[in-house]
Amino acid sequence: MRLRKKPWISEALLEYSDIVVTDGAVNLGQWLSRYGGKELHIEIGTGRGRFISGMAEQHPDKLFIGIEASQDVLYDAARKVRRKGLKNVQLLVFNAITIETLFALGEVDQLYLNFSDPWHKRRHAKRRLTHEGFLAKYQQILKPGGRLCFKTDNEKLFEFSLNQFAAFGLGLSNITFDLHNSDFEGNIMTEYEARFSAKGSKIFRCEARFGR
Amino acid sequence: MRLRKKPWISEALLEYSDIVVTDGAVNLGQWLSRYGGKELHIEIGTGRGRFISGMAEQHPDKLFIGIEASQDVLYDAARKVRRKGLKNVQLLVFNAITIETLFALGEVDQLYLNFSDPWHKRRHAKRRLTHEGFLAKYQQILKPGGRLCFKTDNEKLFEFSLNQFAAFGLGLSNITFDLHNSDFEGNIMTEYEARFSAKGSKIFRCEARFGR
Ligand SMILES: C[S@@+](CC[C@H](N)C(=O)[O-])C[C@H]1O[C@@H](n2cnc3c(N)ncnc32)[C@H](O)[C@@H]1O
Ligand SMILES: C[S@@+](CC[C@H](N)C(=O)[O-])C[C@H]1O[C@@H](n2cnc3c(N)ncnc32)[C@H](O)[C@@H]1O
Repeated sequence: MRLRKKPWISEALLEYSDIVVTDGAVNLGQWLSRYGGKELHIEIGTGRGRFISGMAEQHPDKLFIGIEASQDVLYDAARKVRRKGLKNVQLLVFNAITIETLFALGEVDQLYLNFSDPWHKRRHAKRRLTHEGFLAKYQQILKPGGRLCFKTDNEKLFEFSLNQFAAFGLGLSNITFDLHNSDFEGNIMTEYEARFSAKGSKIFRCEARFGR
Repeated sequence: MRLRKKPWISEALLEYSDIVVTDGAVNLGQWLSRYGGKELHIEIGTGRGRFISGMAEQHPDKLFIGIEASQDVLYDAARKVRRKGLKNVQLLVFNAITIETLFALGEVDQLYLNFSDPWHKRRHAKRRLTHEGFLAKYQQILKPGGRLCFKTDNEKLFEFSLNQFAAFGLGLSNITFDLHNSDFEGNIMTEYEARFSAKGSKIFRCEARFGR
């Protein structure tokens, strides 16, 4: 994602204070009681919000938190959430490296990673959001039995991720190498997914269950 | 594999009685004590024996049992074993559907499935050698911690197999979507592998550990 820094965005985001949380840590352990909802679902690397807003529409009883490192990108997501009038989405400009400071132990029901940056160089493997270092953080914040749902068009990242999940002892399920020609129902596309699948790329997906 | 029945083969096989076991069940629980070797490794669907003979050369201290349903195909494997002068290979014309009648509980150290027939129709899924029905049999004959090593060029079969392994609670490792361009060392090609990779197909591989 090529980004030009847009200085007016910080200011524009102030108008989205009902959707964009500025200090996430104050909600630690309180997300559902403050914002309502029966389950807490979070997405890391939310991008421009197509997936999270679609999911929130489909599941009005659940709270969705979108975490995105880039403020410029998140701004588009905030506009999408406003336009759709969704009340069950909150967005944060935040780097997932410290994700465990946002959520209490076992607070999260489900975690989505969609088209995470592949970091194809081996020496950058630790930056991949499916690296075991991140899995250890997800393990903290997810409920026992909580699931990580992962989609990507990148075969190498998918291969790496399956190995990381398995080595971490997670229970894998619904592994597909071609999501759009699989039995999976109710798929909500992300921006990247729409773009890559239009070009003919296959989409890989799997679920990984923490604990038992 | 297209097969013409060759009636002279039954007779020709009689000359390979040092390599081809006619009644496997009599060795149940006795394979290593009768044939020698520190570990018992078995391959199901041995084909013409390129893999098992290569493995046996590389690991002279282990005993390799090759199980193949087609007598005609196995004959070629027997000739290969004889030509190479291998003493640590035994071959059986046998259908793996009753594999548990050949080996005692926990007798087998490692199991290889290479380019197993894909049985692409959904209603034939039970015939796939990685179907949970077969996994339950492998579980019986493998040592706790014993591994199944699986290779295929067939993406759909690989996807199916990963899901079966994971659902069965096996510990997955060394998952690769492109074996010949992976870190895996000491790979021994099978006949199918040589043929398909020469045509440009990628080879999938993984290991699945039973028990803990
Ligand atoms: C390739 S884009 C995919 C966006 C969206 N998920 C989609 O599928 O269309 C990856 C996104 O993840 C964000 N990202 C990468 N690393 C992150 C991190 N450590 N914490 C939060 N967001 C991150 C990037 O800023 C980028 O917007
Ligand atoms: C596609 S060929 C692969 C041969 C060899 N493994 C290779 O990679 O070149 C599959 C082989 O498995 C054998 N086979 C299929 N089902 C079997 C079963 N239930 N028990 C034993 N052998 C079987 C077939 O006869 C055939 O020789």
